[in-house]
Amino acid sequence: MRRLPFTLLAASLLLASGIASAATTIPATAVKTAEQLRDRALHDDTGYRIVASLTTEVGARMAGSEADRRARDWAVAKFRALGYDKVYTEAVTYPKWVRRSERAAIVAPFPQPLVVTALGYSPGTSAGGLSAQVVKFDSLDALKAADPASVKGRIVYVGYRMQRAKDGHGYGMGSAVRTAGPVIAAAKGAAGYLLRSAGTDAHQRIAHTGVTGFRDPAKAIPAAALSNPDADQLERALAYGKPVTVKLDLDCGLDGEYTGANVIGEITGGKHPEQVVAIGGHLDSWDLGTGAIDDGAGVAIAMAAGKLIGDLPQRPDRTIRVIAFANEEMGLWGSRAYADKHAAEVSQFQLGTDSDFGAGPIWRMSASVKPDARAAMAQIAKVLAPLGVAYDAKRPGGGGSDLSQMHAKGMAALSLTQDGTKYFDWHHTANDTLDKVDPQELAQNVAVYAAFSYMAAQADGDFGSAPGAFAKDDADE
Amino acid sequence: MRRLPFTLLAASLLLASGIASAATTIPATAVKTAEQLRDRALHDDTGYRIVASLTTEVGARMAGSEADRRARDWAVAKFRALGYDKVYTEAVTYPKWVRRSERAAIVAPFPQPLVVTALGYSPGTSAGGLSAQVVKFDSLDALKAADPASVKGRIVYVGYRMQRAKDGHGYGMGSAVRTAGPVIAAAKGAAGYLLRSAGTDAHQRIAHTGVTGFRDPAKAIPAAALSNPDADQLERALAYGKPVTVKLDLDCGLDGEYTGANVIGEITGGKHPEQVVAIGGHLDSWDLGTGAIDDGAGVAIAMAAGKLIGDLPQRPDRTIRVIAFANEEMGLWGSRAYADKHAAEVSQFQLGTDSDFGAGPIWRMSASVKPDARAAMAQIAKVLAPLGVAYDAKRPGGGGSDLSQMHAKGMAALSLTQDGTKYFDWHHTANDTLDKVDPQELAQNVAVYAAFSYMAAQADGDFGSAPGAFAKDDADE
Repeated sequence: MRRLPFTLLAASLLLASGIASAATTIPATAVKTAEQLRDRALHDDTGYRIVASLTTEVGARMAGSEADRRARDWAVAKFRALGYDKVYTEAVTYPKWVRRSERAAIVAPFPQPLVVTALGYSPGTSAGGLSAQVVKFDSLDALKAADPASVKGRIVYVGYRMQRAKDGHGYGMGSAVRTAGPVIAAAKGAAGYLLRSAGTDAHQRIAHTGVTGFRDPAKAIPAAALSNPDADQLERALAYGKPVTVKLDLDCGLDGEYTGANVIGEITGGKHPEQVVAIGGHLDSWDLGTGAIDDGAGVAIAMAAGKLIGDLPQRPDRTIRVIAFANEEMGLWGSRAYADKHAAEVSQFQLGTDSDFGAGPIWRMSASVKPDARAAMAQIAKVLAPLGVAYDAKRPGGGGSDLSQMHAKGMAALSLTQDGTKYFDWHHTANDTLDKVDPQELAQNVAVYAAFSYMAAQADGDFGSAPGAFAKDDADE
Repeated sequence: MRRLPFTLLAASLLLASGIASAATTIPATAVKTAEQLRDRALHDDTGYRIVASLTTEVGARMAGSEADRRARDWAVAKFRALGYDKVYTEAVTYPKWVRRSERAAIVAPFPQPLVVTALGYSPGTSAGGLSAQVVKFDSLDALKAADPASVKGRIVYVGYRMQRAKDGHGYGMGSAVRTAGPVIAAAKGAAGYLLRSAGTDAHQRIAHTGVTGFRDPAKAIPAAALSNPDADQLERALAYGKPVTVKLDLDCGLDGEYTGANVIGEITGGKHPEQVVAIGGHLDSWDLGTGAIDDGAGVAIAMAAGKLIGDLPQRPDRTIRVIAFANEEMGLWGSRAYADKHAAEVSQFQLGTDSDFGAGPIWRMSASVKPDARAAMAQIAKVLAPLGVAYDAKRPGGGGSDLSQMHAKGMAALSLTQDGTKYFDWHHTANDTLDKVDPQELAQNVAVYAAFSYMAAQADGDFGSAPGAFAKDDADE
């Protein structure tokens, strides 16, 4: 007998072991109920009513703010009103950053105000503001390559233009300019940092905030984002070839420690209550908008999906756990605390993902599951296909922004990619308001979450969650 | 002989007298030069460079502000740099209104900030702000009909939604809600006034300022505009059926008297220097944007048109007078002063109109001219037709927003209607910035102004300007 090549041999063994351990499958009755849930969700406005309630009754809810407390109270009350069996909170402690006021202006040669917003963890300027000459870079690489002597004592401005994309991949570099840029500029001795907003709204005079990569307050410098039209204006002023002086006047900074909470609601499993399908979103928002797309929509999608499952005549076999995470915006504080606390239970997490990319329709699903669960994934994909969701079996799943942390501990995870074509027009700005949520598109999301969550909860078998599983996956989130 | 009906007889007499006094015509050589000017203007970026210069080097220039002074210096220098023969200013005195800060919030039942902007001539609130219950009206008529008892001591909110239209006619009611609304609310005893911004940008969290109808400061109340998404938010809060309290905190108001100036540049006529074709725009802008479309574009169109005529080998027969008017925004102060000062010379104004509706292409021309000049108008229309300008011989001409004042004194006037479909997305907001100006559309405007101004300047005969002429025209501006 010819020797089989090693990889083929390994595959044969895997296949054999797969058959031996019984592939995970979704029972036909569960598929049928999932189809009904899906179709019901498409004609149900629970999700929209939740995001309308959160944005109207609470509005902006920056982590650590007075509104953060009200948002938690809202979430507890909303879970209860939606009929969740168990509602509880888990404390999350983090440094509190506050924004009090922010102004900027070109002071020479063409005096005029500029629209800016301070970035998370930026220190304030000293009283009276910071005035310095601006030095411009077109990219993060150009800044990295800069001679510190050209930067020292100046306000660094990086004019990178973030590109629009359905899958939002332009945010990779856009967010790097915001997170890494200030740290690099500070290390080179810059006095302050400005960027062209990491946003795709080329014509809106609204700046995009977001967190920086500052970890050591002693090494941080005042950092802010210009609206795109203001970045254009600054670049036009610089193009005259004369020195341009900008004044930054930021009153913001760290203000001690704060203890908030993840808020959790459960539809308790009838057979295996200790096993959970985990879905969610983050409850905090930036302070500039009302947090409708980031991430009221995600919280609403998950809450509504769980509620629809809870409305079924029978409880699902496994628990549907909906987590409204604390302080995602300033560094995944809630989800990191959650993953640290629950890492030892990772094998009980059947499958999970959260929603944090607005309210556009889901168009792609991918998954990090064990090979034996691929057949079940195909069953899930078949139920989601009529919603316009394409299953990409070659891509890993990342678990979303917050549940990526449990995925990193070994939780089997999906990626449910939304259409983010317009997301970065509004992301982290005053324009993140309810009118950006299309009720029908939101309902499509709820349908996807309700159907997949229910099928995962009813599956015969698991999806491969185990400590350290999927460590080599190259998740796309 | 049968008696002719009176109207037919009158028409015959008019026709006869028209022939007798010689119809105004444009010489063929002037038509040819106008066609060359038109085609040259389409490939010339002078207009765009002017509006870029004004918005970059000066930016916002609210009447009476420090930037108002810089804008006048800019205009004088720009006229000179463009080769105008004569550059001068004429003083204009008006009450100065200042905006220092503006904030608003829902304080109960759902505390959260609202994006507002104070309206021109609004007084400030007393220190600590004005908190009052909101009473909502859907229209100006509903407010007019309201029992004063329902309004007294409250903040009136009018939620009228301005409609988008190519000719901008939605602004008729939109601006009435802003100008008349506060006066009516004040007369009924309201404590404050809010409106849904008179703008067509339903999804931008940017408020539209503009002047109120307050004339007597003793009868004025704090008045401000909410952005459209904030108006949505307020209406959602009101829909809960509980009393909604809003706090307005406006630091703004009248601050004495100020003397600014109309800035005028002339290409002096070679044959009849005392006879003028008057074109222009207004130099002031609101303070929130950089005044690109309102009205940097108008100033640029007129300045560039005059410059192109000035570049011809020979001076035109009559003078091209370009007027950059002072303080249009708070009540046509510059143009009213101009018309008062020059009313006695109205017969020397050959023809005029100004540009104050953004930078969209001109699609329609109409005119208020004497019947004997209709043939000349048809000649002008023929030259403009390739630019996409339709001549509506049945409509009167209004002279634009500022030169309407000279038209009211008897100046023959055109209306050159631009496509304003998007104009009210940006009008009177922070979003009035250079990126909203399309260079090619601006060049089309310059082509229209250069061609018509030149033909009017070279005409054999006049267009009927005389004291009190056109008093019965129903101008559309």
